[in-house]
Amino acid sequence: MIFSDFRLENNLPIYIQIKNYICSLIEKGLIPNGSKLPSSRELSEILGVSRNSVIAAYEELKSEGLLYSIKGKGSFVNADRITPSNGLSIDWNRLENGFSKNANSLDIVKTEIPWSSDLISFKSISPDGELFDMSEFKKSFLSRISIEGHKLVNYGYAQGYKPLIEYLTDYMKKKGSFSKSKSILVTNGFTEAFDLILSTFSEPGDTILCENPTHNTSIKIMKSHGLNIIGFDIENGPDFEDIEKKISENSSNIKFAYITPSYNNPTGNVMTPESRLKFYSIMRKYSIPVIEDGFNEELLYSSSHIFPISSFDTSGNGVIYIGSFSKILFPGMRIGWIYADINAIDKLISVKRCRNIHTSSLDQGILFDYLNSGRFEKYIKKIKRAYGEKFNFARECADKYIKNKYILGDGGLHLFVRLDNIDSRKLLEKCYEKKVIFMPGDLFYIDENGRNTLRLGLSRLSIEDIEKGIKIIGETVDEMYDEMHL
Amino acid sequence: MIFSDFRLENNLPIYIQIKNYICSLIEKGLIPNGSKLPSSRELSEILGVSRNSVIAAYEELKSEGLLYSIKGKGSFVNADRITPSNGLSIDWNRLENGFSKNANSLDIVKTEIPWSSDLISFKSISPDGELFDMSEFKKSFLSRISIEGHKLVNYGYAQGYKPLIEYLTDYMKKKGSFSKSKSILVTNGFTEAFDLILSTFSEPGDTILCENPTHNTSIKIMKSHGLNIIGFDIENGPDFEDIEKKISENSSNIKFAYITPSYNNPTGNVMTPESRLKFYSIMRKYSIPVIEDGFNEELLYSSSHIFPISSFDTSGNGVIYIGSFSKILFPGMRIGWIYADINAIDKLISVKRCRNIHTSSLDQGILFDYLNSGRFEKYIKKIKRAYGEKFNFARECADKYIKNKYILGDGGLHLFVRLDNIDSRKLLEKCYEKKVIFMPGDLFYIDENGRNTLRLGLSRLSIEDIEKGIKIIGETVDEMYDEMHL
Repeated sequence: MIFSDFRLENNLPIYIQIKNYICSLIEKGLIPNGSKLPSSRELSEILGVSRNSVIAAYEELKSEGLLYSIKGKGSFVNADRITPSNGLSIDWNRLENGFSKNANSLDIVKTEIPWSSDLISFKSISPDGELFDMSEFKKSFLSRISIEGHKLVNYGYAQGYKPLIEYLTDYMKKKGSFSKSKSILVTNGFTEAFDLILSTFSEPGDTILCENPTHNTSIKIMKSHGLNIIGFDIENGPDFEDIEKKISENSSNIKFAYITPSYNNPTGNVMTPESRLKFYSIMRKYSIPVIEDGFNEELLYSSSHIFPISSFDTSGNGVIYIGSFSKILFPGMRIGWIYADINAIDKLISVKRCRNIHTSSLDQGILFDYLNSGRFEKYIKKIKRAYGEKFNFARECADKYIKNKYILGDGGLHLFVRLDNIDSRKLLEKCYEKKVIFMPGDLFYIDENGRNTLRLGLSRLSIEDIEKGIKIIGETVDEMYDEMHL
Repeated sequence: MIFSDFRLENNLPIYIQIKNYICSLIEKGLIPNGSKLPSSRELSEILGVSRNSVIAAYEELKSEGLLYSIKGKGSFVNADRITPSNGLSIDWNRLENGFSKNANSLDIVKTEIPWSSDLISFKSISPDGELFDMSEFKKSFLSRISIEGHKLVNYGYAQGYKPLIEYLTDYMKKKGSFSKSKSILVTNGFTEAFDLILSTFSEPGDTILCENPTHNTSIKIMKSHGLNIIGFDIENGPDFEDIEKKISENSSNIKFAYITPSYNNPTGNVMTPESRLKFYSIMRKYSIPVIEDGFNEELLYSSSHIFPISSFDTSGNGVIYIGSFSKILFPGMRIGWIYADINAIDKLISVKRCRNIHTSSLDQGILFDYLNSGRFEKYIKKIKRAYGEKFNFARECADKYIKNKYILGDGGLHLFVRLDNIDSRKLLEKCYEKKVIFMPGDLFYIDENGRNTLRLGLSRLSIEDIEKGIKIIGETVDEMYDEMHL
């Protein structure tokens, strides 16, 4: 403890001895520049001297410029005039490893156009916060805290909060996916779930089969893990011939298939039940484990009307289902889940514990209460209507204002548009000058395709801005055609 | 969408046609076993038939055993009698990679004695939930939610919630650690912080220098990343000769030093300011970056009286400081932070975004309010008194009841005891029969040492159980000496 070796030694006034002592600590570097000293009351107790002596010593130090005070905060050391020793200097660029290099170079947040309030931004597909019912949310918090508050803020289990695990198991049952040999792991959203699965079961150089295009965050995670990505076409549903061809070309080398059967991001395609069954049968034929991304499945007309691929695996153990509400509900809370074979879950639990011990118990508790009280079902009805209206309106606008376009997808939180002979990066540049931005579609392709596509996220825009923005995009497309004399 | 290809085709009664249609879907496997059908109202709308026809069809299916209903929940498919096709079968053990194998084999939760209510368990050093002031916690929630509720439950920034970042920057300033070229990243507790740093800057086979013994979770994380761990002795403070010897033996090969200067876990040792400065100087001499674990620093007599190693690095960029409140406050919320060079933080942000996007904004918001309102300072005063009393009492008990022991450490949430000629694993076995358990000390050593040590976590035990438990441990030690005729 600092200050513990203070001794009154000579005939100098006590406050001067204190001042000299503190000076020497600062000069030795034991009290760093900018740090806060104890209050005069505290220090007088520690040193065993009167408080007045400490106050006088502090005043001396202030007059010498070695201390300064901030009202209500205390006294701070100003050691600028004492030449600082050279610090430990590290070149962090040299230390960075390959995983970080990938994660950084693929982090589009670092290169994209920053948001500003005068932009009409079609970039986001995160939910419209105005649709959240905060008073219902508050009720869920208060109810859980009154039932088991201490438990929710203390350590929990790596697997998750038990009532939530039970709720989600039941939820998977309603989706027709229940199997006695499967179990739940609660995660920090889809992103962590996907990363954990690859962290546990993949090695750099492994091959993974997926839709082309697919979710750009998923592409980033697969690349960060050093995976070799093979895509199959999905324009008219999954191209099964292409899938079988790619599998036989890569023989037994394919480690996983990754697929988003409902509202593929970016195309918005929804796989038919027949295609889901066929996809499952092919994966079974070649013994390829499937990672199914349940992305926005909850926005489907009724969750009981179309079943996840996981529902065909009730007598198997090969489909790992990733669920998340965060594209529609409270994404700031970061909660998702994995439903998979018990043995696989067991391994994932230890990896999760090694990474961050467990997902916030508080958030799991609130979410459980929100789901279990029936508030979620009410909310889903409301947002399906709200997002459905936006989607239909945006489609009409695109039909009306944008020439030579082809619109993919069956709904969701975004439109995916393909243009004839237009480079969407160039279009974005021109639209940005008119204060409209969107996601260039090439970000979602694992090859050089998609340069003529764009994703228009709708969830956070008003009806007025959707029309205004799409009109500007359409006019800009017209200008580009004019320039090309088309 | 399922049900969309239904057509009325022949002269059979409509309800029979509906029944046959649903039958065929079940037989094709398109409606899985156990899944929920739409309500009769919903299905009548989808099929364009009367609700009565649907009700009659469902009744038929029930009488054939293909459906069953659960009151208030709906109608579910019972396709057991239709032979299920063989599922996709995967051997997850074969797929598991090295990282998972390490994380699993080092996961002590999987092998340790399960907790039961009749045990006196000295295993935990997590905080006593009874000391949490839940009404103050509730106030912080309600105040944040009323100020910016929508923002807290929607997506935030990977770096963290801005008011919390500002608060923590100021907090590091009070610790004397402020540097203009450093910045904060909010993480899911210490565990994620340490894992992110190694995920970003280490490669398998790198060497890391650390205290021996040290935190067993840290050992697990270092081993999972494939690091070669070199320990130095800390029994009488860090052994600087040993440190310099180990550095020169491993020349330029040491990637990081990892150190817990306050209340080293398990020994409870606190490094003096002089030792901290000397340690920093040696690391500077050899250009070895330091990961400083601020573990339980807040429990020190006053946080301004002893400065972290990070405070000597204000003109350097080589110390990465990890802070966390979770050993003392709300660990269920999983919030910690990294304070490091801006360039290093920038890389860590992208890796964090790749792993789980960001830490729960809700939890960050509540914690910020709790800290900023002064509630935290009041709480710290309270727990220092409470844990201090427990620590002193436990020390007295150990002195009174346990023979031939040596107690290390200056306080904190646990005692660390070394015994003469006693194997603490054998002691644990015998104590378990008497319903007392603790952490065998060898878990904290990176070599074969510590077999005669034990860590007694005190934070969650009553004064009565502390005395009762330590008495039983002492009696068991006596019995073991008797058996050995010592």
